[in-house]
Amino acid sequence: MTAKQMAEALVFHEVEKPFTTQKVSLPIPKSHEVLVKITYTTICTSDLHTYYGRRTSPCPSILGHEIIGRVVSLGSAINTDYKGEALQVGNLITWSVYAHDVHGTMAKKGFPQKSQNLFKYGHQQMASDKPLSGGFATHCLLREGTAIFNLSDRLNYKELAPLNCTHATIAGAIRLAGDLNSKNVLVTGAGMLGLSACAMAKESGANNVYAMDRDIDRLNVAKTFGVNQTIAAHLEVNDITEQLGANQGTDVVIDTTGVPSVMEKSLSLLNIGGVAVWVGAVYSQRETQVNAEMIVRNLLTIKGLHNYRPQDLAVAIAFLEENHKKYPFEALVNKDYPLNELGIAFNEAHTGGHYRVGIRQDPS
Amino acid sequence: MTAKQMAEALVFHEVEKPFTTQKVSLPIPKSHEVLVKITYTTICTSDLHTYYGRRTSPCPSILGHEIIGRVVSLGSAINTDYKGEALQVGNLITWSVYAHDVHGTMAKKGFPQKSQNLFKYGHQQMASDKPLSGGFATHCLLREGTAIFNLSDRLNYKELAPLNCTHATIAGAIRLAGDLNSKNVLVTGAGMLGLSACAMAKESGANNVYAMDRDIDRLNVAKTFGVNQTIAAHLEVNDITEQLGANQGTDVVIDTTGVPSVMEKSLSLLNIGGVAVWVGAVYSQRETQVNAEMIVRNLLTIKGLHNYRPQDLAVAIAFLEENHKKYPFEALVNKDYPLNELGIAFNEAHTGGHYRVGIRQDPS
Repeated sequence: MTAKQMAEALVFHEVEKPFTTQKVSLPIPKSHEVLVKITYTTICTSDLHTYYGRRTSPCPSILGHEIIGRVVSLGSAINTDYKGEALQVGNLITWSVYAHDVHGTMAKKGFPQKSQNLFKYGHQQMASDKPLSGGFATHCLLREGTAIFNLSDRLNYKELAPLNCTHATIAGAIRLAGDLNSKNVLVTGAGMLGLSACAMAKESGANNVYAMDRDIDRLNVAKTFGVNQTIAAHLEVNDITEQLGANQGTDVVIDTTGVPSVMEKSLSLLNIGGVAVWVGAVYSQRETQVNAEMIVRNLLTIKGLHNYRPQDLAVAIAFLEENHKKYPFEALVNKDYPLNELGIAFNEAHTGGHYRVGIRQDPS
Repeated sequence: MTAKQMAEALVFHEVEKPFTTQKVSLPIPKSHEVLVKITYTTICTSDLHTYYGRRTSPCPSILGHEIIGRVVSLGSAINTDYKGEALQVGNLITWSVYAHDVHGTMAKKGFPQKSQNLFKYGHQQMASDKPLSGGFATHCLLREGTAIFNLSDRLNYKELAPLNCTHATIAGAIRLAGDLNSKNVLVTGAGMLGLSACAMAKESGANNVYAMDRDIDRLNVAKTFGVNQTIAAHLEVNDITEQLGANQGTDVVIDTTGVPSVMEKSLSLLNIGGVAVWVGAVYSQRETQVNAEMIVRNLLTIKGLHNYRPQDLAVAIAFLEENHKKYPFEALVNKDYPLNELGIAFNEAHTGGHYRVGIRQDPS
């Protein structure tokens, strides 16, 4: 690699303001770093939250964290991926959305995603020494403490890009939900996270998978992701209970909406001993009204999850490799654009009602 | 046993109305039943809730469920206790507060206390065929599906009586809290359940045990039950955080109050990955306001528990046998009365600010 090789980044400066193109010298990875040529990035809902000002994020920055790419060069200390497989130049890879101190207290406690000095791809201010930290650029520099995974070239880029955010988070949620064998699972919210949850619950042995959403089109899509009964979100608890009657209720809820009224309703739907896993509530909202007597008398559990452990990403990859022909994940990214049309892509993602819009940098 | 032998029961008819004495023929236990001569019963807070009308309970009934007694006669199919030890006439025993279908669906799911047709001692309307179902009587007939445990005569009746309610429930809560080794545990409410939780958390390897209550006298008592720091309940989250500062916060909360403001406050005190176990909220109350974003971002867990599994009672018995000299449980029952002074005992329990008031039917 020569000093003249340059990367190109689309930089986010301000809410709803145009991205600017910035040239960046291609870095030479240090011992535990990996330089990646990005092949595909999907625009996650949280990218939209940032760009449209629904949450604050440091600027200037390179957004985008649902990324896959090919290894360009490796630091001297890295020659295997997280699973111990050979990691080589040209390999197609995904990686944890964060770099962390693998020996730190939080990692040891089982919460690596909450490590001190956590570095999150697509969420940080561009650092002067290592600016390539997000998905809307030609390259990304993976830092020490990133869990890297080889990917199979048998899968489509559109299927693979959401792995390290959507699917890995859902794999974490399924882990928290416990054994799903013969359980009835209700997934609230039939967006990208919700559809992933439906399919993964089904493949984890769930007896019935229900999807709840206010959008009937999304509910129809959910039927192709392992859902055998859909629930209109406006229905009251009694109506839903009646609708689900013959199937012996709901044992597990996975909430991807973060909407208090939905979380409240779904708690009331849980059977004795039921578990609600909340992953959607990552934005400011009113307090959720919980009937503590119901929690106690019905022996209910509520578990919150934010991001995931590296092992969850491994599970998500294995799930997708096993099931990508069974569920139409590829079709969920039904529009994509080249990197230099990022602004158009964001607008389309914001207004078009898509599950995901992609940024394509490689024809395959 | 002849037909002329009679038991005597103090019958509850109506809120705050005198108990009446009723003679009952001593039954001959059927194959899976056991007839017990009651030696000691403690008045549980839920007995007071019923008697003073804070909750409705079927009448007429024999209240009292924190009971111990000696085996009078055994059904033909019973000759061992839950642990498989010989069960013989004269043995001092405790038993699960409920009789359940051990082969039923709920028992198989791990929630025996929620079995269909559950029978709860001290909570049922007196049945014409088997009226001896509560602790405020000379005898109790244990039904099929009751988990019976031999007790050591080395322990005091006052220590033993609360085992099958207070201590067993707390053993269940500790089970739900997970591994407490090196964790900081906050117990909210320093009543009978709370003191049991403090001592059991300490013996389960907790690093620090904190007790929160609004009553400074109760907090002082808590210091003799393994608590190394007490927290005045009126303090705000920031003040408490500062007070606990050097000890690295709170990993586990066990709530015995059921008071929404206390549960709300204690959730805010939890470290990332923290667990709150709620056992106190067994009465009607306002909704608890839960910040779902905090639950998600801090990866918090809330678990409700009502009653317990037989194995929890086994754990509670082992805990008490091991530690009864270390913690002054005996002193928590600082008043007792003979059975025929039950009304006076209830009034004393209601007004006297005691942890427990006992009903004694045996001098030892």
